[in-house]
Amino acid sequence: MHVHEFQDMMRRIYFHRDSERAVVRTFNWLVEEVEELREALKEKDNEAIGDEFADVFAWLASLANVVNIDLEKAAIRKYNGRCPKCGQTLCKCPF
Amino acid sequence: MHVHEFQDMMRRIYFHRDSERAVVRTFNWLVEEVEELREALKEKDNEAIGDEFADVFAWLASLANVVNIDLEKAAIRKYNGRCPKCGQTLCKCPF
Repeated sequence: MHVHEFQDMMRRIYFHRDSERAVVRTFNWLVEEVEELREALKEKDNEAIGDEFADVFAWLASLANVVNIDLEKAAIRKYNGRCPKCGQTLCKCPF
Repeated sequence: MHVHEFQDMMRRIYFHRDSERAVVRTFNWLVEEVEELREALKEKDNEAIGDEFADVFAWLASLANVVNIDLEKAAIRKYNGRCPKCGQTLCKCPF
């Protein structure tokens, strides 16, 4: 599935709600999902970890819909086969 | 670009570093990128907002690589055209 197809799917399911919820509250949901991912990683439950990755990705795409950002285009523009900081295909930035 | 292609690109550029950095520190970088997205949203600078969305997505994919999760498969499993909570194609969950 293309990144923009996932973002479009999120729009179809959630945009009517996310647009009402607006930016700050949708962002806060994203933060909450990131916290749930932290918990799942601590528990080391692989199915829960997968679900929480899906949720963070879903809320990121939903938030992108609310602020009218094309996540796929933004990602390709910044990461086009190279590290945007050091410009290398195998990142050599200092840690 | 498919979600798994983006994740694979992240693996090629960053896995040699992310696997050394391990889960907790890679997760902390993700949290830092989410905070940078918050700041960009406050500033309402559209190019910066796009870049920060790209960074959060990149670190999410990198973290998925470290814990061996296929982000595309996880996303499709949980969100397959319907809200996973209410089961509707147009979410009707209470706010």
